[in-house]
Amino acid sequence: MYSIVGKNVARLDALEKVTGRAVYAIDLKLPRTLHGKVLRSPYAHARILRIDTSRAESLPGVKAVITRENTPERRDGVVILDQHILALHVVRYVGEPVAAVAAEAPEVAEEALDLIDVEYEELPAVFDAEEVMGPNPRAVIHPYRASYEQETPLGGRPIPFDPRHPNVFNHFEMHAGDVAKGFREADLVLENRFTKAKVQHCQMEPHTAIAQVDPDGRITVWTGRQGIHRTRGHLAAWLGIPPSQVRVISPYVGGGFGGKEVFAHEFLAVLLAQKTGRPVRISLTREEVFTGTVTDVQSTIWIKDGVRKDGTVVAREIKIILKGGAYADLIPMTVRGCTFAAVGSYRIPNLKIDSYGVYTNEPAAGPFRGVAVPHVVWAAESQMDILAEKLGMDPVEIRRRNLLCEGDKNAHGEIVHSTAARECLERVAQFIEWGERLQQGPGPWRRGKGIAVGNKHGLAPAACSAIVKVNDDGSIEVRHGADEIGQGANTVLAQIAAEEFRIPLENVKVTFGDTAFAPYDLGSTGSKTTYHTGNAVRLACQDAKCQMFELASGKLEVPVSELETSGGRIHLAGYPDTGIAIADLFVHDRARGKYLPEVGEILGKATWVQPGTPMDPITGQISPELASEGRRVNSFYIHGAQAAEVAVNEETGEVKVLRLASAFDMGQPINPKLCEGQMEGGAGMGIGGALYEELVLENGAALNPTLMDYRLPTTTEMPKQDDFDSFIEAAPHKDGPFGAKGLGEGPIAPTSAAIANAVYDAVGVRITDLPITREKVWRALKGETGRGLKNRPRLFWDREMSEGKDGSTKALGDKHE
Amino acid sequence: MYSIVGKNVARLDALEKVTGRAVYAIDLKLPRTLHGKVLRSPYAHARILRIDTSRAESLPGVKAVITRENTPERRDGVVILDQHILALHVVRYVGEPVAAVAAEAPEVAEEALDLIDVEYEELPAVFDAEEVMGPNPRAVIHPYRASYEQETPLGGRPIPFDPRHPNVFNHFEMHAGDVAKGFREADLVLENRFTKAKVQHCQMEPHTAIAQVDPDGRITVWTGRQGIHRTRGHLAAWLGIPPSQVRVISPYVGGGFGGKEVFAHEFLAVLLAQKTGRPVRISLTREEVFTGTVTDVQSTIWIKDGVRKDGTVVAREIKIILKGGAYADLIPMTVRGCTFAAVGSYRIPNLKIDSYGVYTNEPAAGPFRGVAVPHVVWAAESQMDILAEKLGMDPVEIRRRNLLCEGDKNAHGEIVHSTAARECLERVAQFIEWGERLQQGPGPWRRGKGIAVGNKHGLAPAACSAIVKVNDDGSIEVRHGADEIGQGANTVLAQIAAEEFRIPLENVKVTFGDTAFAPYDLGSTGSKTTYHTGNAVRLACQDAKCQMFELASGKLEVPVSELETSGGRIHLAGYPDTGIAIADLFVHDRARGKYLPEVGEILGKATWVQPGTPMDPITGQISPELASEGRRVNSFYIHGAQAAEVAVNEETGEVKVLRLASAFDMGQPINPKLCEGQMEGGAGMGIGGALYEELVLENGAALNPTLMDYRLPTTTEMPKQDDFDSFIEAAPHKDGPFGAKGLGEGPIAPTSAAIANAVYDAVGVRITDLPITREKVWRALKGETGRGLKNRPRLFWDREMSEGKDGSTKALGDKHE
Repeated sequence: MYSIVGKNVARLDALEKVTGRAVYAIDLKLPRTLHGKVLRSPYAHARILRIDTSRAESLPGVKAVITRENTPERRDGVVILDQHILALHVVRYVGEPVAAVAAEAPEVAEEALDLIDVEYEELPAVFDAEEVMGPNPRAVIHPYRASYEQETPLGGRPIPFDPRHPNVFNHFEMHAGDVAKGFREADLVLENRFTKAKVQHCQMEPHTAIAQVDPDGRITVWTGRQGIHRTRGHLAAWLGIPPSQVRVISPYVGGGFGGKEVFAHEFLAVLLAQKTGRPVRISLTREEVFTGTVTDVQSTIWIKDGVRKDGTVVAREIKIILKGGAYADLIPMTVRGCTFAAVGSYRIPNLKIDSYGVYTNEPAAGPFRGVAVPHVVWAAESQMDILAEKLGMDPVEIRRRNLLCEGDKNAHGEIVHSTAARECLERVAQFIEWGERLQQGPGPWRRGKGIAVGNKHGLAPAACSAIVKVNDDGSIEVRHGADEIGQGANTVLAQIAAEEFRIPLENVKVTFGDTAFAPYDLGSTGSKTTYHTGNAVRLACQDAKCQMFELASGKLEVPVSELETSGGRIHLAGYPDTGIAIADLFVHDRARGKYLPEVGEILGKATWVQPGTPMDPITGQISPELASEGRRVNSFYIHGAQAAEVAVNEETGEVKVLRLASAFDMGQPINPKLCEGQMEGGAGMGIGGALYEELVLENGAALNPTLMDYRLPTTTEMPKQDDFDSFIEAAPHKDGPFGAKGLGEGPIAPTSAAIANAVYDAVGVRITDLPITREKVWRALKGETGRGLKNRPRLFWDREMSEGKDGSTKALGDKHE
Repeated sequence: MYSIVGKNVARLDALEKVTGRAVYAIDLKLPRTLHGKVLRSPYAHARILRIDTSRAESLPGVKAVITRENTPERRDGVVILDQHILALHVVRYVGEPVAAVAAEAPEVAEEALDLIDVEYEELPAVFDAEEVMGPNPRAVIHPYRASYEQETPLGGRPIPFDPRHPNVFNHFEMHAGDVAKGFREADLVLENRFTKAKVQHCQMEPHTAIAQVDPDGRITVWTGRQGIHRTRGHLAAWLGIPPSQVRVISPYVGGGFGGKEVFAHEFLAVLLAQKTGRPVRISLTREEVFTGTVTDVQSTIWIKDGVRKDGTVVAREIKIILKGGAYADLIPMTVRGCTFAAVGSYRIPNLKIDSYGVYTNEPAAGPFRGVAVPHVVWAAESQMDILAEKLGMDPVEIRRRNLLCEGDKNAHGEIVHSTAARECLERVAQFIEWGERLQQGPGPWRRGKGIAVGNKHGLAPAACSAIVKVNDDGSIEVRHGADEIGQGANTVLAQIAAEEFRIPLENVKVTFGDTAFAPYDLGSTGSKTTYHTGNAVRLACQDAKCQMFELASGKLEVPVSELETSGGRIHLAGYPDTGIAIADLFVHDRARGKYLPEVGEILGKATWVQPGTPMDPITGQISPELASEGRRVNSFYIHGAQAAEVAVNEETGEVKVLRLASAFDMGQPINPKLCEGQMEGGAGMGIGGALYEELVLENGAALNPTLMDYRLPTTTEMPKQDDFDSFIEAAPHKDGPFGAKGLGEGPIAPTSAAIANAVYDAVGVRITDLPITREKVWRALKGETGRGLKNRPRLFWDREMSEGKDGSTKALGDKHE
């Protein structure tokens, strides 16, 4: 059916990347470049009394020093404008930028930082999520934030400053059915608390920005980014200049995962370049990447389920606290986004979700692959195994019983479309030989299996555009504004264009990463590129074809409606050998140029607008009318499942992942190998979060902000090749380009729960706080922290926040162990 | 009437250039770049017997050596495909590329050249124009050239190989009236022979090319060029790959003047980059610029005029020989182009022109500011003064009497449009105080005045395109494929776009010099950019406005036809404060992006096609029908005049230009200051050609190929500021953008004749071979070479070439001294 869609073509950048010739922002240096360094706060919370830069300024080789004194006072942010680029009166986390220096050499800039005298008055700081939710936290972090936060269709509701919980800034809630009634009718009500540590994206390429200011004031910034147009908008707004005066160039990006958003160093590089008239390069150290960009949120999740004896989940209540750190700009999107994980997988008639964003005096959190969906899936899919055990059911069977199917109505009131959740579940169960008993050896290692499902929603509303140029030799060029963050966006978009033109892939060139030429795109974020940008590319191709057909129609004396293109020719539909070559639309000039005699160029262009669908602000449901039109809150849901086999050392608590299978639906896969890559990468990142990763903070200061001390898993922590498999369960989406959806964030979602369930299966230890470290398992095995669920979960703030509501907390704890 | 057209706004690149931050190709280096050097022939004509590169290849640091053995055999060229990139069997001039080397450092590459052993067998060589025209020249340079030359509407007729004159390759002829009858009816027939030495463009920036080959085979070449799309076409055709695989980037160009066409070093850089997998940079030495790129043609011109007693020129016959050197690719355009100079200025009822291109064993000639029009004007305007003297007339008066006026029919049969030739003549006469006697001092210096008119035609047929993007802040971007060769193209095109949008100039950005984004353009050549590219920009603006109006029409509920734009708003025509801001056509996205909900981007695009008009192949005339429709052979004619006052030292022969005025029409000037710059630059270059410049060859080898030995005039050779003036005589052209024409080539045309006439006025010496060196004047003053016209001009080959025609040569020499 398709000529190139669905085929495992090699990545367009394969040769460049394997030969080391692909260019990343960190590779770039301009002539006469100065090197910038950032002085950062050593305190988690302090008032700045005085900054003296005179000694730094007089150091030979120092070209500029900037502080709050000579920096625009305008705050920056997307959803919450809570951040000054350089701290104004107060620093709110260890690592907050206070001053920046540009010098002839990095060492000189570094030395100059030591010569800047900053006098601080330390303030009390707050770090604990549960303390923060309460009325009298030790510190109030943003007391004057009334105007900070903007409503966004992708975020929860802003919470204005409230002295009862002054550090709570955002709340998203949804309801379906009657959760109190559901709990009353359940045979078993079970509540648990799950937490996940602060982790960081750990992209291989540290953040690097190079800014250059033209003599006419125009600014160019090279930076590895997700969302070049948004960066341009941020810089222009903050500098107070028209967006067209700013050009952002993002070459290949060495990993994004949500953590290549706009950060202070980009603004500071521009400011220093403006001050010095020379290009300024700021490349963050790994420590700065950990504490000066963003991390994932740290979460605390209470999940309470009511279930019938047959395994049907009849009611679920979830409370989520997400710590945004000291500056929480984009976190409202995570506050809302993570809740969809509870909607997308299961048929739960009575549902109540409350999700909160809170400030603490910790390094800022931001978007991270899955926007906390993995946190919710971690809680929910651990819970499903606990429920199954209580009911004496098979964990796969309890999931089967509750999974949403095509055509079902979900908790938003959406009609479910494009799901292969069940097929994914069966596929990984088959891989892991579910139901077959594992042979246990004589040593300390105990083996166990675990399984989990998960889903990730696709962004909506959103818009992206694309341009497709038809070249004078009949080849085409796709210009897009999404980012090549390693996921293979360029290859997928080229395949979509090649399919639309019916030409070989080598006749498609992709241009990206430069706001000067790439049309508007939100950027590679939220698993959106294949679906959203892909749709824009497809529409732009259709526009270009239309323009071609209009030019050809007269020459061929065939109406436009009867023309088709394939193999570089324009021909009567169905007759590929008739008609004319695309190249022959061009006049061949004597001087070896080819041109079009009228229209300048054939440039197809289009915007793909993915509408959102209004939800009831309290229930989170869409109207039945919109639902019956097939409208959805999100553009799509990625469904999938993972199954893991682990070995746990009873003596040391060490956990090894022996086997891991992923199965996901991504609509029609455009490039199956790239989909497998996403699944393997997601599972690998999932293993990190499940077993190893934690940015350890003490009084807000990171203790392990290096790749030596932060335990990022490597290939040796992954299952061996044959035991690490990925399966595609295509479920074409009616609105996707050739039926495609996104995929990237899905495969990280179920990993932690699958592994935790396998650990429990192996040694009967239920760890509820990620990561599942050796120490935690060992202590649990020793009985120190409880084997199973000895720790009574607390919904301590429930009365506080839910006061005056249904009082359903009476049911809490009654029926569970 | 106009808001920005006609205003002296500062050049867009002024700040960049005066601060030294503008980037030229020669400034560029890529990481890991190898340095290329070219081995060139020491013989003017020789057979290559053997090339041994083994010693060069084994030199440490050498990465590749290429010769005819590993270079495509395909020839390159535009009009005449006469050139192998590396000599195949024969070298035809001193400086012809024979081999090339890429090495880690330029010194290593240079050393490697010395280690390449080439065995030559020297062949007889031919250099003399008049010998070349004859039947038995010492050498036949391109015996197998049957398939070389292509017909072009811009060139003369290819002459196939003919043993009677084997090195003559191109001929253009035109006739008007009956020239024999004209001479019979004349009161005076006068014939003279004028020559002009070989000169070079001497652009400040030597030619530099950097080639990079992507792992997927795509090629990028940075090179300072006139005509990026043509370069792309050449490289692709020669390499046998699709044009879209080649990207040519030409940043600011440090001078073009016709001499930044495509040359061997660009191909060699690509080939070496392909071989080594690394970027290769070849930057020519000044000597290579002189002998390895192109020079101007060297000309010999016989001009014979028949004139009535009242000064009316009734007949003119011109024979022109242009030496193309060993490879004459583009010379057919010069062969034809130079003849228009005799058509455009005067009303001459009987005209006969024959123009020939010939090969010699000398460095190749190519396009040079004015395509030999200055040569013809030099001859014709010297001749006008000689005629005036014979008739006892005032030189200004004889010109007045013969000048073509608006509405006249010229020798092509075109209706003259847009001429201010008369106003220009009067203006410079006034400046120089024509008619007022100069006071002669007591010393050896004698002062004199001279005057000359001239014209240069504008290119046709031709096509160019432009793209205009409307930004989300209401500013616009112009993308064009012409070149910023220092002439101010970007500024002029921005003014045109700003006028069309009625916005300030700072709201227009210009993008150029990159085939990846610049639409097709012939390049900055033939004084075409303001008129041709300007028209394309204007049409593209109109297309963009139309797209904007369509988007606004619905919002405003006003039909498209009633909308206008100014000041960044779209409004009801005549009501600039109504309507909406252009920026508000864009949806403002929460994430600080702005996008268009449907059309991707507003991208206006257009091609300006300047049709040519068919001429009778023998008479060079267009049909009366086409003439009456206003059709023209050329797109426009630039008319102008120059007047000079010189001082000649009777003892040494030295000539000083004391005062020089230029006056030209360029239609409506877009930027008068830039027009004055063109006039001053042209006059300066004209002074060089008149008095100083000559590339001296001995047996085909250049004796003075350095800026130390080649006498390029500097500011000290120019008149002082107040004595060096430029005047604009606007004559708006109905088809030009806002009435503009071109200008660049015009102001070099009359300079030599004005100076020669002034020298004659001062000391009575008539020099007919440029440059008018001190030695020539001194010898003439001594009587060695004749004072006045003692040398009898020879139309020696006239009988040979004109055999069987009207036998009018009987009149030759009869009536003149």
